[in-house]
Amino acid sequence: MQRPSGRQPDQLRKITLTRQYTKHAEGSVLVEFGDTKVLCTATIEEGVPRFMRGEGRGWVTAEYGMLPRSTGTRMGREAARGKQGGRTVEIQRLIGRSLRAAVNLEALGENTITIDCDVLQADGGTRTASITGAGVALSDALAVMKERGLLPDADVHPMPNMIAAVSVGIFDGEVVLDLDYPEDSAAEADMNIVMCEGGGLVEVQGTAEADPFTEAQFATMLSMAKKGISELHDLQKASLEG
Amino acid sequence: MQRPSGRQPDQLRKITLTRQYTKHAEGSVLVEFGDTKVLCTATIEEGVPRFMRGEGRGWVTAEYGMLPRSTGTRMGREAARGKQGGRTVEIQRLIGRSLRAAVNLEALGENTITIDCDVLQADGGTRTASITGAGVALSDALAVMKERGLLPDADVHPMPNMIAAVSVGIFDGEVVLDLDYPEDSAAEADMNIVMCEGGGLVEVQGTAEADPFTEAQFATMLSMAKKGISELHDLQKASLEG
Amino acid sequence: MQRPSGRQPDQLRKITLTRQYTKHAEGSVLVEFGDTKVLCTATIEEGVPRFMRGEGRGWVTAEYGMLPRSTGTRMGREAARGKQGGRTVEIQRLIGRSLRAAVNLEALGENTITIDCDVLQADGGTRTASITGAGVALSDALAVMKERGLLPDADVHPMPNMIAAVSVGIFDGEVVLDLDYPEDSAAEADMNIVMCEGGGLVEVQGTAEADPFTEAQFATMLSMAKKGISELHDLQKASLEG
Amino acid sequence: MQRPSGRQPDQLRKITLTRQYTKHAEGSVLVEFGDTKVLCTATIEEGVPRFMRGEGRGWVTAEYGMLPRSTGTRMGREAARGKQGGRTVEIQRLIGRSLRAAVNLEALGENTITIDCDVLQADGGTRTASITGAGVALSDALAVMKERGLLPDADVHPMPNMIAAVSVGIFDGEVVLDLDYPEDSAAEADMNIVMCEGGGLVEVQGTAEADPFTEAQFATMLSMAKKGISELHDLQKASLEG
Amino acid sequence: MQRPSGRQPDQLRKITLTRQYTKHAEGSVLVEFGDTKVLCTATIEEGVPRFMRGEGRGWVTAEYGMLPRSTGTRMGREAARGKQGGRTVEIQRLIGRSLRAAVNLEALGENTITIDCDVLQADGGTRTASITGAGVALSDALAVMKERGLLPDADVHPMPNMIAAVSVGIFDGEVVLDLDYPEDSAAEADMNIVMCEGGGLVEVQGTAEADPFTEAQFATMLSMAKKGISELHDLQKASLEG
Amino acid sequence: MQRPSGRQPDQLRKITLTRQYTKHAEGSVLVEFGDTKVLCTATIEEGVPRFMRGEGRGWVTAEYGMLPRSTGTRMGREAARGKQGGRTVEIQRLIGRSLRAAVNLEALGENTITIDCDVLQADGGTRTASITGAGVALSDALAVMKERGLLPDADVHPMPNMIAAVSVGIFDGEVVLDLDYPEDSAAEADMNIVMCEGGGLVEVQGTAEADPFTEAQFATMLSMAKKGISELHDLQKASLEG
Repeated sequence: MQRPSGRQPDQLRKITLTRQYTKHAEGSVLVEFGDTKVLCTATIEEGVPRFMRGEGRGWVTAEYGMLPRSTGTRMGREAARGKQGGRTVEIQRLIGRSLRAAVNLEALGENTITIDCDVLQADGGTRTASITGAGVALSDALAVMKERGLLPDADVHPMPNMIAAVSVGIFDGEVVLDLDYPEDSAAEADMNIVMCEGGGLVEVQGTAEADPFTEAQFATMLSMAKKGISELHDLQKASLEG
Repeated sequence: MQRPSGRQPDQLRKITLTRQYTKHAEGSVLVEFGDTKVLCTATIEEGVPRFMRGEGRGWVTAEYGMLPRSTGTRMGREAARGKQGGRTVEIQRLIGRSLRAAVNLEALGENTITIDCDVLQADGGTRTASITGAGVALSDALAVMKERGLLPDADVHPMPNMIAAVSVGIFDGEVVLDLDYPEDSAAEADMNIVMCEGGGLVEVQGTAEADPFTEAQFATMLSMAKKGISELHDLQKASLEG
Repeated sequence: MQRPSGRQPDQLRKITLTRQYTKHAEGSVLVEFGDTKVLCTATIEEGVPRFMRGEGRGWVTAEYGMLPRSTGTRMGREAARGKQGGRTVEIQRLIGRSLRAAVNLEALGENTITIDCDVLQADGGTRTASITGAGVALSDALAVMKERGLLPDADVHPMPNMIAAVSVGIFDGEVVLDLDYPEDSAAEADMNIVMCEGGGLVEVQGTAEADPFTEAQFATMLSMAKKGISELHDLQKASLEG
Repeated sequence: MQRPSGRQPDQLRKITLTRQYTKHAEGSVLVEFGDTKVLCTATIEEGVPRFMRGEGRGWVTAEYGMLPRSTGTRMGREAARGKQGGRTVEIQRLIGRSLRAAVNLEALGENTITIDCDVLQADGGTRTASITGAGVALSDALAVMKERGLLPDADVHPMPNMIAAVSVGIFDGEVVLDLDYPEDSAAEADMNIVMCEGGGLVEVQGTAEADPFTEAQFATMLSMAKKGISELHDLQKASLEG
Repeated sequence: MQRPSGRQPDQLRKITLTRQYTKHAEGSVLVEFGDTKVLCTATIEEGVPRFMRGEGRGWVTAEYGMLPRSTGTRMGREAARGKQGGRTVEIQRLIGRSLRAAVNLEALGENTITIDCDVLQADGGTRTASITGAGVALSDALAVMKERGLLPDADVHPMPNMIAAVSVGIFDGEVVLDLDYPEDSAAEADMNIVMCEGGGLVEVQGTAEADPFTEAQFATMLSMAKKGISELHDLQKASLEG
Repeated sequence: MQRPSGRQPDQLRKITLTRQYTKHAEGSVLVEFGDTKVLCTATIEEGVPRFMRGEGRGWVTAEYGMLPRSTGTRMGREAARGKQGGRTVEIQRLIGRSLRAAVNLEALGENTITIDCDVLQADGGTRTASITGAGVALSDALAVMKERGLLPDADVHPMPNMIAAVSVGIFDGEVVLDLDYPEDSAAEADMNIVMCEGGGLVEVQGTAEADPFTEAQFATMLSMAKKGISELHDLQKASLEG
């Protein structure tokens, strides 16, 4: 088997994390997984949603969108159609859940961080790129909160472990890492995996496209994802230290 | 560890499948997983969505809803609020994808089957009950199609393998099968697994609620789910033969 | 004239009222008028709508829905279409108005009871079945309120008279009671009547489908409805005592 | 009993019908029931709704709206709120049904007439004024259709009988005709009646506001409405001949 | 060049301002620019929008709508379509901005005046007629506020200068004033100008329809508009004194 | 007077036009007016809106959006709120109208070009930056159409003149060019001007924020805008030749 991009089966695309990409947000990261480019911004706001008020905990939530021509053919603008599609809703719920798993909500005080992931250019893997970039943007926003004295207890780290995500799938019968669009659209199975720095699993979402996959294939995918996420964690760390 | 219901860790709730529960639909199954009761109806309609026209293949799709007072406290009616919530959208997409994986769309001709899964009473696991009941309702509808001569090739079986789903999770530190509401709301991790009769994996959706889960836990959950789904497949078969 | 069902002109369908049909709601009644099956649940909530706050009175309201395949051909799901149709709005307003006419709102304190009427299977007369079943569900919920000490004055009965409804119409030139779907869809006139136990009229909604109807026909319809509702009141009473 | 306006119990308000009130519509009538002023326009359009195509029959439908400050306190504009309220939907369905009962849809050919009833000033009875004015606007539009040769058979009259509507109610214990706003808001019962010229009943919609009403009261209301509608029919005829 | 109406290039249509056209609103003006007829009502309400609370200033806002058959062919009702079109939104924002420029918001106290401009009949220039009529309705509402003691400081005039608007355009190569529909639909350029009584410019909105226009044309248009608005101010004054 | 940025009154911000900023669109330009950054993409699609079919002409339309955190405080995402705000609608209509004025629609054949202007970072003047960038993206897309043989007549240039836009305003009593956010939010008057390369006026939209402005001020603004737009046209040309 030959990947369309010529990559090794377990090889990530070129990953770039550009912090402070825009000037207004408390965290602003352009994440690139090859030709997939997502702008992740983090916004700090006082207060929490109604159902959490008075409990002393914070909240982290995410929204996701694609620019209409981030894709090969133009998609209708969701704002113009008057509603977010099912895929959008699914993805932003996944991003939000993943980030909350990485954060100690008690340590935030009654503040909300909203992560916006907007896809400028899509080439497969926008949700995993979003989570990986959002992790860094969130970390930057938490540093701003610390600086501004918004964290109730300076000794408790609000994000003990970094978080990242990658896709794995079965392409042309073989397990491959970090699918780009040509692979994604022809894959037999597709799995998105979110992991914390220590190796703990946060989300596993696998879908058979045509035929079901076996437990053995599943195990191979999981192990390859683990390797990829470990590399992403290193890149995140380098970016935050850079 | 003691499960609130007193069940063994790998024990399903009492499962009931009542076919022909209502009279109009081509397939109509009331599925009960303990106190969770979902009415699954299958509707045959001529034609397919616009993006598929002229390709000679059929389509299977699903919609999901909860009656406002199927739950402990009343939820606002989605029709009155003017939009389906994110959870509803996620679930109905999962049901639809799962069913399509079990069906040979080519064998349907240009016809659409819509499965409606409406929760009459909720007690945890409504999505897995929905898929399990929908599998049977779909099978009934396909038999109606065969009778009516709507299948283009009488020799090709449109649903080669039955499909079922179950949840597994980590409750009080231990892996348990088929979580009911008291377990679900306190679980540390929750996974929904959809499998075909032969044991192939169709969907795996695992989420860590608080702390990440390990690969070992993951493997235990997968294996317990496999056992549970095998029992569900037996019950489906018995129901269809009954 | 022969009714399609073989019933006498002034004969109701078989009526069944099953209380405690689901477990969460404070009142939960499955009402069956022949093949028409409606699940009526009553939910008690603290507080009243904004326009009534501080007046010390309670509120009773209703919502109505049909499962997509409760009918012979599938109807689009209102939640998916993003709005309730005109017929739905009309019916739920009628149910709510009728129930409020039977209840002493002052006796409720500032609490709201919401009645959800969801049609599981339709065969004509869903609105009259809904009102009849809702009367019983409401009565059960009021008993729960009494038990929980939510009624401000234990000596004032919040629902002095039971309420029920029935349809009458002109089918094949003759006045008939409690029309089923085959009659309803071919009727020359259709009237829904809501009455209190003592015989007082609460709502009268008559519509000529093709030709106008005469005052004499109108009088016959009214008198036949009165007889039918009296039987429904007996069945409601028996159910509540059972 | 003294009516707030000093009218006799069976006395209509001053009724005015002004034809050709605006210049674009095929029928355009300003109808005034005292201070209630409604502009009724009729629009002829080729074609019928999808569900009727190819049957050779026409369609008549109605829409209703109130200008935001047609009332004592401003109501939110429905276009700005993004949806028509339940009362609006109920009223426009009533107007449409009533007009269709007066028209021979076969005689229209596959054309649609839309009646818009827009309330410029409200003082009670806007729905009965709307139906009464719409009857005249519809008649004017049908004359235009005849002139333009749009009616398939010149010998079949498309609107054999004129149609009108009036309200009756119980105010201060007594039955009164054509309630204005001060009466309407204090009435014990309220009934809207639509009749054809020959005296046939088209719609009867009675509602008890506080206590139920008796059959005897009902009969008195019906008879008083009959007298009022007969006067309205005379005024409509005079207007059309004027 | 000959204008379709036979008017001189710098001649307004016949302008009429009828105050107290309806009885409920605090200001109610029917404004007619030839066959264009707009009902402008002003409503006084306590309080201001959330973003202004506690600042002691008032607010003026406008809403605009067209009756469905105010035009040559029927337009869909915006309330039924569930949203206001882009043109509607643009126009009501223009009206609101213009009126606020004429009013001293500090002098209003924390009160809101809402101007509704509803087009009964359209023949070009509905937005300029709306602003001109709204100026008078607003002036009437302010007089009511003064009478009712709602203005915090009786010595500060809340509307120092009257406001009016007119269109100018290039029709058949020549600059013309106050375009009616036949001119408007064939104009090469179209400009709406809003001015205060003293001659100050409040809004200038010019659009080239086909070819761009020159600065010289622009200057001619501006000067002709100035003349027209000065006549409108005289008519407004006469109306308010009448 | 000192501008907050230290610029001369008639000095533009630093303008950058980056073509081929993303890879999928037929035209893709990142335009920067200082810190204002807008991504303008042009999409070619076969066919025209229904109301234009069969006329042989093409269509150009625009949509506008701001990323939620392109601004100092986060704005709610329009897709999530389910509707585009009034400001968005106004701006995208302005962009579309302006571009159509620069294009020969006959020369496009029955094709549609959609320009998406998405604001990545806002600092005042997003609509004028959008038009200026969109002009270049449109030009690139037209070149693609030519290459692909989609233009019906190769000898007719579909965009005879480039188009650009700039804002002018009165800040601290003085006329200034190309307002940034600190100026815009404090300006006494604000005007957006769109011009074709030859100097023809396409759109003039001037608004007095507090006090009306005089004709003399108006003339100064117009002349300063003309100078700025001429510089923008030079930059556009250089970019297209680069």
